[in-house]
Amino acid sequence: MILTVTLNTALDITYRVRTLRPHASHRVTEVTERPGGKGLNVARVLAALGHRVTATGFAGGRTGRSVRDQLADTSGVVDALVPVAGATRRTIAVVDQTTGDTTQLNEPGPVIAPAEWSAFLESYGELVSSAAAVALCGSLPPGVPVGAYAQLVRTARAAGVPVLLDTSGEPLRRGVAARPDVVKPNADELAELTGSHEPLQATRDARRRGAHTVVASLGAEGLLAVNAEGRWRAVPPSRVLGNPTGAGDSAVAGLLSGLVDLLPWPARLARAVAVSAATVLAPVAGEFDRRTYEELLERVIVTPHNAAA
Amino acid sequence: MILTVTLNTALDITYRVRTLRPHASHRVTEVTERPGGKGLNVARVLAALGHRVTATGFAGGRTGRSVRDQLADTSGVVDALVPVAGATRRTIAVVDQTTGDTTQLNEPGPVIAPAEWSAFLESYGELVSSAAAVALCGSLPPGVPVGAYAQLVRTARAAGVPVLLDTSGEPLRRGVAARPDVVKPNADELAELTGSHEPLQATRDARRRGAHTVVASLGAEGLLAVNAEGRWRAVPPSRVLGNPTGAGDSAVAGLLSGLVDLLPWPARLARAVAVSAATVLAPVAGEFDRRTYEELLERVIVTPHNAAA
Repeated sequence: MILTVTLNTALDITYRVRTLRPHASHRVTEVTERPGGKGLNVARVLAALGHRVTATGFAGGRTGRSVRDQLADTSGVVDALVPVAGATRRTIAVVDQTTGDTTQLNEPGPVIAPAEWSAFLESYGELVSSAAAVALCGSLPPGVPVGAYAQLVRTARAAGVPVLLDTSGEPLRRGVAARPDVVKPNADELAELTGSHEPLQATRDARRRGAHTVVASLGAEGLLAVNAEGRWRAVPPSRVLGNPTGAGDSAVAGLLSGLVDLLPWPARLARAVAVSAATVLAPVAGEFDRRTYEELLERVIVTPHNAAA
Repeated sequence: MILTVTLNTALDITYRVRTLRPHASHRVTEVTERPGGKGLNVARVLAALGHRVTATGFAGGRTGRSVRDQLADTSGVVDALVPVAGATRRTIAVVDQTTGDTTQLNEPGPVIAPAEWSAFLESYGELVSSAAAVALCGSLPPGVPVGAYAQLVRTARAAGVPVLLDTSGEPLRRGVAARPDVVKPNADELAELTGSHEPLQATRDARRRGAHTVVASLGAEGLLAVNAEGRWRAVPPSRVLGNPTGAGDSAVAGLLSGLVDLLPWPARLARAVAVSAATVLAPVAGEFDRRTYEELLERVIVTPHNAAA
């Protein structure tokens, strides 16, 4: 199985309103709720791609109960979330139906107690030993040490299990130094980590900091991957317009899916780009348009990347 | 006891953000949750004024459970909410800490099934028979007939129990025709009911439509009350600045409190204005600043209102 870690799980709530105007009162016309947090999106996409997935991290309170109930209804995902006293955070995405714009409100998440973090580490150690790959995704809730991902990367590497890290800021900086197999920053996260806004230079710098493979997600410009075997650029055959929320999580799922299927890197990148683009056409993160995915899979353009290009 | 009816109960959630900008992502710095819906605010203020209160209406789902848990911790309020299959709605108030402005997002509320409405009517009939007064407050959830308040007014009047109605639109129009003892519209609701933006004329018109006493809440200009005994204007001694959310609900609580204490109308209005103004100084609806209330109680200016004024 593939293990996904979501330390800051969320109940993702989407509101549709006619037009969002600050200082006004709005009638919400439609409410949807989904399990959220990047790792849970990755888990749902992996399960839809046919993989067995175990999802761990933290869940608590009535919002955590809602997340777990919905996970129980998700075929292919085993719930190994660790219970905590605090309530799982909500995120609210307010979709303006006139402009299509989304305004996001993210609660901070519950404070994780030291005993809860210890309980997680114990459970994680056991789960890693039977995992084919591990994904560490998203922000850290309050109370979890900033070096958390570095510790989780080391545990996975000590067990000989490939580990992918997708986070930002200081947790990314420390996690990269623990030498994960793959990191998947977006352009902003990469620039924050390396100080460089030039993707190829920044990607190389991220490798020097410890990541074996760096896969930078560059929005409409697809993926740029660099490792000891080579450099590749992977782009969809045409621009896909839609809701980009969750596209990065789907790229992570595609990379892991290709990894456990032992695909060569160009085919892994093609899978990641295809499922990511197919997510842009789905209404919510963690879901994708299957027909688009299958159509794109053969048509993603993967080219060796020339340093001078 | 005083019976408050809140058909569209809510879990009121308040988010604080640094600056609200449409299309941006926001980190919520503070989250608070309170039982909401106008009638539950009235119930909490009445309890704080020393009355025994029974709160009925509907509650369902995990949000309904949160509302009921918090009511259980509210001294003086007996929970007689009728369970429903749908989930109690959330309302989100997003407070911009830079400007102090509030942006409101209101979920529509669960659809009430015919059997749930019947169960409520049966329970209401029993509760009314032991009530000293009834308050019918707020909007109707989907599935409840638009003539609901008219029916609830008639039941209370048939039992000889004084009934106050605080709603808007068509439910108010129909409810007024059932001859409630008191209606408490704000300026907008009164104008919508009568077509007149001139408060005294509109207040008289609302009386002609069936209400025995009309108490119009005019924001900073206090209350204007008209009935067969006379006309009064009640205003605070000075303007109170703060958060007006819940001020109208507190005015309803003050009116009912004065009614069951058999105060003459001018003293009822003074109580309503004092507790309403003291609510403006409290951070959330359903609460008030007790010291301000006690100070204002003797200083509210109540004057007979001259038709020519």
